[in-house]
Amino acid sequence: MKRVYLDHAAGIGNPSSVHHEGRKAKKILDDARAKIGAVLNCRAEEIIFTGSGTEANNLAIFGVPSGHIISTNIEHHSVLRPLEKRGNVTFVPVKPNGIINPDDIAKALRPDTVLVSVIYANNEIGTTQPIRAIKKIIGNVLLHTDACQAAGYLDINVQNLGVDLMTINGAKIYGPQGTGVLFVRRGTRLMPIILGGDQERGLRAGTQNPVLIADFAKALKLAEKKREKESARLINLRDWFIAQLPDAKLNGDPVQRLPNNINISFDDIDGEMLMLALDLKGIAVSTGAACTVTSTEPSHVLQALHATRDTLHDQGNIRLTLGRSTTKKDLEYTLQVLKKEVARLRSL
Amino acid sequence: MKRVYLDHAAGIGNPSSVHHEGRKAKKILDDARAKIGAVLNCRAEEIIFTGSGTEANNLAIFGVPSGHIISTNIEHHSVLRPLEKRGNVTFVPVKPNGIINPDDIAKALRPDTVLVSVIYANNEIGTTQPIRAIKKIIGNVLLHTDACQAAGYLDINVQNLGVDLMTINGAKIYGPQGTGVLFVRRGTRLMPIILGGDQERGLRAGTQNPVLIADFAKALKLAEKKREKESARLINLRDWFIAQLPDAKLNGDPVQRLPNNINISFDDIDGEMLMLALDLKGIAVSTGAACTVTSTEPSHVLQALHATRDTLHDQGNIRLTLGRSTTKKDLEYTLQVLKKEVARLRSL
Repeated sequence: MKRVYLDHAAGIGNPSSVHHEGRKAKKILDDARAKIGAVLNCRAEEIIFTGSGTEANNLAIFGVPSGHIISTNIEHHSVLRPLEKRGNVTFVPVKPNGIINPDDIAKALRPDTVLVSVIYANNEIGTTQPIRAIKKIIGNVLLHTDACQAAGYLDINVQNLGVDLMTINGAKIYGPQGTGVLFVRRGTRLMPIILGGDQERGLRAGTQNPVLIADFAKALKLAEKKREKESARLINLRDWFIAQLPDAKLNGDPVQRLPNNINISFDDIDGEMLMLALDLKGIAVSTGAACTVTSTEPSHVLQALHATRDTLHDQGNIRLTLGRSTTKKDLEYTLQVLKKEVARLRSL
Repeated sequence: MKRVYLDHAAGIGNPSSVHHEGRKAKKILDDARAKIGAVLNCRAEEIIFTGSGTEANNLAIFGVPSGHIISTNIEHHSVLRPLEKRGNVTFVPVKPNGIINPDDIAKALRPDTVLVSVIYANNEIGTTQPIRAIKKIIGNVLLHTDACQAAGYLDINVQNLGVDLMTINGAKIYGPQGTGVLFVRRGTRLMPIILGGDQERGLRAGTQNPVLIADFAKALKLAEKKREKESARLINLRDWFIAQLPDAKLNGDPVQRLPNNINISFDDIDGEMLMLALDLKGIAVSTGAACTVTSTEPSHVLQALHATRDTLHDQGNIRLTLGRSTTKKDLEYTLQVLKKEVARLRSL
């Protein structure tokens, strides 16, 4: 049947519209939600779509009713800044290897503690946290984890983890940029930060993009399918690369870390200069989180690993994060260039 | 030169990354910003990208420092709900034709008024507001307008309008869903609602999607190019259609309204049933805003046009919004089906 579309004010393919075109868009959304639910081992309606991992983290932190929050000193800025704005937070420091001791979280618990938020795998140093052990020790207090970097490498089954809130980011799982998901366990009281329409069970107003969301779901399913094999492959490459490094210091735990993360410091070198030198030789690395590259201070994550700031200022720091396209040949070339550039920069 | 990409933790094509791939993504973003600035007649850095029109409206309302706000009783929910949450708001009622009297806004001004927010063209009844006249009368008080429905039909030159904040939505200009823009005039004090990284001059954290944003810019440029011709074409179709309607009441002003908006009421009919009946005959219309279709109450916009609620409960209301693909033939078919279905439903 020919269709006459006279609902342009709603846009085309608005999943909140009741007519045929709207229902078609809603079905795409529902299918994506179910697919993601299958990966996370949760109900479809426990999936809230957002415009980024950052927004999902903001929703988790700002959305929880008032009360005391416990977090760590190596959270991503999208958790850290909302926590600072809320106030009434205890930041539990990680050990020098970048890992939190669940007992330290237990010690910080107060009768008015409403939330514990711990990053599953750190974006800078790749250390992974004992989420399940933390949930066991905090009991009924809500647990949020920022799993943006963890998805695709670690177990993100929310029942295994015991989390009540969990953030995933589309771009980090080879899905579309500008997409995020917050898992919200049924029965969790949460308030929206973006208000308006009734989308996402009233937890996030704004018309969804069904096409992007379907791509997100597809990407997450694929990432989960590839997870074990790809993790094993990257752990091999990572550990081989680290072993070849002559005089670099590995930041974070060597074992409890993401398969794809190599975060290293060199004495007497400027990290920014090293990064730019590598870029000129065709190698893209980072000096830390991309979202804060404008900062010249050592990152709060590196500071968390050191007793004093002074040592950090004499060190140059770079982060290499491997991915699906990374080959041993790539890393051999990188190693060769890296050694040369470190020596050259030190001689300046 | 072969590139080795070792920044997967940042995602691929992150415009905040400093390396070659990041700069390439940033260039796409910068070009889009400049293109949009050219349409709005503003500086590129006055464009803030968001994840939806809804988010841009939330940023405008929540972002303004504390103080009294003036708005109207026919705003979109993405303005209305944030205003209700903020509090300290005067909602100035529109006249029965759905248009605000700038003098009524002037009367509501107080020494602590920090913002006036008026929807440029209403999403339900299509009435357009005298934005420029409002700015003239409020002087230095900030003026925000939600131009989501106006873009593509009305003048969105921010210098002509005199606005300090203006919202545009990608999906309403045939651009991508899940994209929005807030114009923020230089010097306007605004606080972010989503915190984290330094993206968008610190006003909206979260990695942008350069591809979507480029599509937004392209769509806006095209919409502006087509604007005058398309508006004239749709006004003709709209007015012809309205003239053919036998016993329907047009809601909102017949002249000061969007070229593509036909919002009509029929006595003794249920709007929802009429909408579903038309859908079965291949015609997609709406009963109001798609984002609140779950509500069974008459919309706050229709209520604003009536002195009492009682008359509204005996009326069925539908909204037809034309677009680029709409032909006279489509409307002839719609008219024929509409007459038949109205008669059928009344006879039940």
